[in-house]
Amino acid sequence: MKAELLNKIEHEIQGQPFIGKPQNLYDPLNYIIALGGKRIRPILALMGCELYSGNSDKAIPAAMAVEVFHNFSLIHDDIMDQAPLRRGSPSVHKKWDTNTAILSGDLMLVKAYGMLQKSEHKHWPELFAVFTKTAAEVCEGQQLDMNFETQALVSEADYLEMIRLKTSVLLGCSLQLGAIVADSPVEEAHKIYDLGVNMGMGFQLMDDYLDTFGTPELVGKQPGGDILAHKKTILVIKGMEAEHEKFKLLFENKTIEPNDKIATAKKLFVSTGADIYLKQLSAKYFDLALQGLSNLKVEESKKTDLQEVLVYLQNRSY
Amino acid sequence: MKAELLNKIEHEIQGQPFIGKPQNLYDPLNYIIALGGKRIRPILALMGCELYSGNSDKAIPAAMAVEVFHNFSLIHDDIMDQAPLRRGSPSVHKKWDTNTAILSGDLMLVKAYGMLQKSEHKHWPELFAVFTKTAAEVCEGQQLDMNFETQALVSEADYLEMIRLKTSVLLGCSLQLGAIVADSPVEEAHKIYDLGVNMGMGFQLMDDYLDTFGTPELVGKQPGGDILAHKKTILVIKGMEAEHEKFKLLFENKTIEPNDKIATAKKLFVSTGADIYLKQLSAKYFDLALQGLSNLKVEESKKTDLQEVLVYLQNRSY
Repeated sequence: MKAELLNKIEHEIQGQPFIGKPQNLYDPLNYIIALGGKRIRPILALMGCELYSGNSDKAIPAAMAVEVFHNFSLIHDDIMDQAPLRRGSPSVHKKWDTNTAILSGDLMLVKAYGMLQKSEHKHWPELFAVFTKTAAEVCEGQQLDMNFETQALVSEADYLEMIRLKTSVLLGCSLQLGAIVADSPVEEAHKIYDLGVNMGMGFQLMDDYLDTFGTPELVGKQPGGDILAHKKTILVIKGMEAEHEKFKLLFENKTIEPNDKIATAKKLFVSTGADIYLKQLSAKYFDLALQGLSNLKVEESKKTDLQEVLVYLQNRSY
Repeated sequence: MKAELLNKIEHEIQGQPFIGKPQNLYDPLNYIIALGGKRIRPILALMGCELYSGNSDKAIPAAMAVEVFHNFSLIHDDIMDQAPLRRGSPSVHKKWDTNTAILSGDLMLVKAYGMLQKSEHKHWPELFAVFTKTAAEVCEGQQLDMNFETQALVSEADYLEMIRLKTSVLLGCSLQLGAIVADSPVEEAHKIYDLGVNMGMGFQLMDDYLDTFGTPELVGKQPGGDILAHKKTILVIKGMEAEHEKFKLLFENKTIEPNDKIATAKKLFVSTGADIYLKQLSAKYFDLALQGLSNLKVEESKKTDLQEVLVYLQNRSY
């Protein structure tokens, strides 16, 4: 079932390449979207629609809109984070140049709106309201993430709000857009949005866990990136509550080898129980999402697909 | 009359500042839009509406959408062109930093859509179709402009197509959005779009002329920027047709003083008649726009405002 929805998305992406001139503006759009990924957001849009209408076809434009929007944000985030790689391949600003990456990102954001415009007109007011609100929030989340880099102390609440904006709301939006085109009751569309936001929180917290404790072969990259970038994840926030001086010394140490820094940080995360705290926090949000699923006014048999996604995201090791 | 419409726009801009968190993401939006400018695009949107309905209020959301979109493009263009100044003040990426400029530009593009969403729902399909098509074209135009920088030869046709996309279509779009919300006949909306595109062509060509031959005190910046950037404007394209070697030597000369380079280029533009050619080409497009105005199925008395704009843009010295 999930494979069927994934195929639908891949078929749509491959069948509708971005075409236009000049070529060097359009190539990056096809390049980044072809790099793959889990396609979680478009699958959620299709599932949100299927839950309330039994069919997902109506949600294809919305599904493409959220996937294209997500890829726009990846192009620009990679410039801002100076990331040389995206899914193991050169990021757009490395393969082309920064100016091309800025501009093809802009075009991709415009194209995301273009995708949404392929939805039935009667749903536009609700679709655009949710989509535009979410798009602005994703920008806010990215700015907060950048601001935190130079901020000495970040509270747990601030960090959670940042990942809610940067990551979670787009998952909620995806499910809600699907529910809207399925003509779901308004309250249901709001409930499924909340479910998606909780899923997104659990998802991002698990991402943070895997960035430090994941198996390199499975994750597809060396662990410890967040540590070296001094990201104030829950691991650091929680670890610092118990061992403030040790973390301060570690992060201020400019001569320590990267691998030693990672190893020391990992030990501190474990000794302070920050690793367990993070996993429990992630689980808490997945539980809220599962609870949200059980509260949807939809036949139980229809809920299994979305439930599988939740279990898959919670238990993934990559 | 034009002052009345300008006041309406300024009132709207000042009365509806961009509000949100984090502050350093939202500040650049209010900063750049407060730097001013002629507000041609939003005024055209209001005029397009007034022509067909006698009132411009319905077009305020569309007017704001094109002005906010235009300002988004300024933020990102200034990064790409490494421009330190915008309207005599520091550009956003200089006043803040490049990452903030990328992200606040993104947010401003999203907010432009948000503005358009304040229009009456019944007009959305037409409004969004024109707006999204235009937004993509503006990106294409900017990419062509960048591509031309490293291209030895640019044809007149290629240059005209570049400025059509980068500048002109947004003026056509502005007028058309106004006509659409005024419930104008579809053919009229298309005709006024074409009128705006021709106005935009004349406008940009006059801009190119003033960049080289304008009076610094009036233009507000030192002339010759295009020459120093080796922009392949009509002046260069036409001048090179007659004096290819002299231009080649001049542009390849790495030791010449900037002021000498500008002075030599200006002399060549005049001796080859490229300056007159450019002015005539600009006039040709303004004539087409005036002709388009006379062909609109609207009482002649209602056309004077738009006619004044055309005459003003053609005869401006800044």
